[in-house]
Amino acid sequence: MKKFVNDPKDFVPEMLKGIALANPDTLAYVPEFNLIMRKDAPREDKVTIIQGSGSGHEPAHVMTVGRGMLDGACPGDVFAAPPAHYVYETAKTLASPKGVLLLVNNYTGDKMAFEMAQELAEADGINVRTLFINDDVAVEDSTFTVGRRGVAGNFFVMKAVGAAAEAGADLDELVRIGQKVNSRTRTMGAALTACTPPAKGSPLFELGADEIEMGVGIHGEPGRRRAPLATANEIIDELLESVVRDLPFAAGDRVALMINGLGGTPVSELYVLYGRAHEQLAAREITVGRSYVGEYCTSLDMAGASVTLVQLDDEIEELLAAPAEIAARVF
Amino acid sequence: MKKFVNDPKDFVPEMLKGIALANPDTLAYVPEFNLIMRKDAPREDKVTIIQGSGSGHEPAHVMTVGRGMLDGACPGDVFAAPPAHYVYETAKTLASPKGVLLLVNNYTGDKMAFEMAQELAEADGINVRTLFINDDVAVEDSTFTVGRRGVAGNFFVMKAVGAAAEAGADLDELVRIGQKVNSRTRTMGAALTACTPPAKGSPLFELGADEIEMGVGIHGEPGRRRAPLATANEIIDELLESVVRDLPFAAGDRVALMINGLGGTPVSELYVLYGRAHEQLAAREITVGRSYVGEYCTSLDMAGASVTLVQLDDEIEELLAAPAEIAARVF
Repeated sequence: MKKFVNDPKDFVPEMLKGIALANPDTLAYVPEFNLIMRKDAPREDKVTIIQGSGSGHEPAHVMTVGRGMLDGACPGDVFAAPPAHYVYETAKTLASPKGVLLLVNNYTGDKMAFEMAQELAEADGINVRTLFINDDVAVEDSTFTVGRRGVAGNFFVMKAVGAAAEAGADLDELVRIGQKVNSRTRTMGAALTACTPPAKGSPLFELGADEIEMGVGIHGEPGRRRAPLATANEIIDELLESVVRDLPFAAGDRVALMINGLGGTPVSELYVLYGRAHEQLAAREITVGRSYVGEYCTSLDMAGASVTLVQLDDEIEELLAAPAEIAARVF
Repeated sequence: MKKFVNDPKDFVPEMLKGIALANPDTLAYVPEFNLIMRKDAPREDKVTIIQGSGSGHEPAHVMTVGRGMLDGACPGDVFAAPPAHYVYETAKTLASPKGVLLLVNNYTGDKMAFEMAQELAEADGINVRTLFINDDVAVEDSTFTVGRRGVAGNFFVMKAVGAAAEAGADLDELVRIGQKVNSRTRTMGAALTACTPPAKGSPLFELGADEIEMGVGIHGEPGRRRAPLATANEIIDELLESVVRDLPFAAGDRVALMINGLGGTPVSELYVLYGRAHEQLAAREITVGRSYVGEYCTSLDMAGASVTLVQLDDEIEELLAAPAEIAARVF
């Protein structure tokens, strides 16, 4: 394993400590329950938004805490759901009189943890709603899910509800917006290589030198098929076709287009995929209204990429365009 | 080779096309000489700033074109200097009556191309100055340089002169600021793996399963030594010690601290390095005033990282804090 890691059991706490040290004015780290939180949270005038999941998907979600997005993120260990009491303590610490919205990518372990946390928080009189994200079109059920997986599209849900919460929307309104964005968002990815969890020290699955995994999950779960290595255009065309057909997206639609890197793929390659996807959408008379190229939801050091489309309307586009200030930035 | 690539000879133009398509309001692509330029350039009231280099270092420099940074970038092919006439045509296209500042990382090929372009542009009556960046402390001369190499620290030069130009500074003033930032900036990196240029199709150099290259260049040039794989703390401590001793940085200094990913290393690992570096600086009574964690200057898909320190003063800190709007962003 060639990684920047000390003792693998310290990998997540050391990363979280680094995030807080790099953002001393805006973020705090609470080691007792892996919490990265805004220093100005909770706010009485704003619904609190929290997302958690296994670690290894950075910048999701610990680097998307900040003004206009999350109030807090409580990750588990690498590819492991956060313990329910971490989520509960996070909700308690950040509870606002306007309520708490929990965002959860649809995986069995995360779902259990967040549902249990919601029950515990409600017993304390906190007003909590939970919203599940399931944008991955690759498979109907997967290794760790009943139903579709939540992957890079969760960025758009976080961004939209984050902007609406900042503008004063109440909890019911945030649930409506989040569900709407999720219902219009579709993603599919491909892996060129497996990823290596620090504690395992070896690749999570085997992929031949000339093989790729079409429809891979962000924990290395199987997708639709093992395919022979193909050109950038062939790969993005197949991913895009699957995404477009699923909603379906149609001529006249205006969309957000995201090419998300899975951790080990340089941004130069992502722009090659972006250019092709943009042109293929234009050929279908689908207009790209907003563009996103980079790493949003990764799978450790996996080489690969996913494509996400969001069917925009005026409301969603305005929320996506609102300012935000998070750790995942260049300056 | 497992990459998102079509015909390797199209890799750079396809990437550049993607950048322009993703930023239709702000950037234009001129295929004839690999130019990515601001749509509002040249401006009569502002010195034009141009940087070019081989491709494969993205986001440097084609994704750092925009308000508050570069007016244009003219890259060569992967790890190859841009042809002199590309640089000349770029300078001519973007020439402002206030002059043109060319930024060049110190490599023999780039130096030749930019010096020739400056001569050609001056023959046309354009007021041109050239500024060389050489922040890499690893070696005194390298495979492609006489003198020190320019690496991730070039971000700070671009950012500082970009902000000053936006505020109306003249060409002499920009040269002064750029030289000052360069003289206070030091970097050193380590490679965990080699990188694979698309046209070569195989790793550029050999690195054993338990070996790392301390002081690697961003084109895979040799550094100070081959070392056995070590912990994250051991690696960053050695890099930081080399950087601190070089200027030297001293107790009481206020610095910008950058942990730059070389392309194949996930941001989670970069924050582990960041946390350690921040604490080690604190132990030396060196204060981190500004933090940068992510990819700024990469080496294709190389797994590895570099650490950069900039000795701040009020002028530099203000320029680094000024707003900018470039393609290398999350939203």
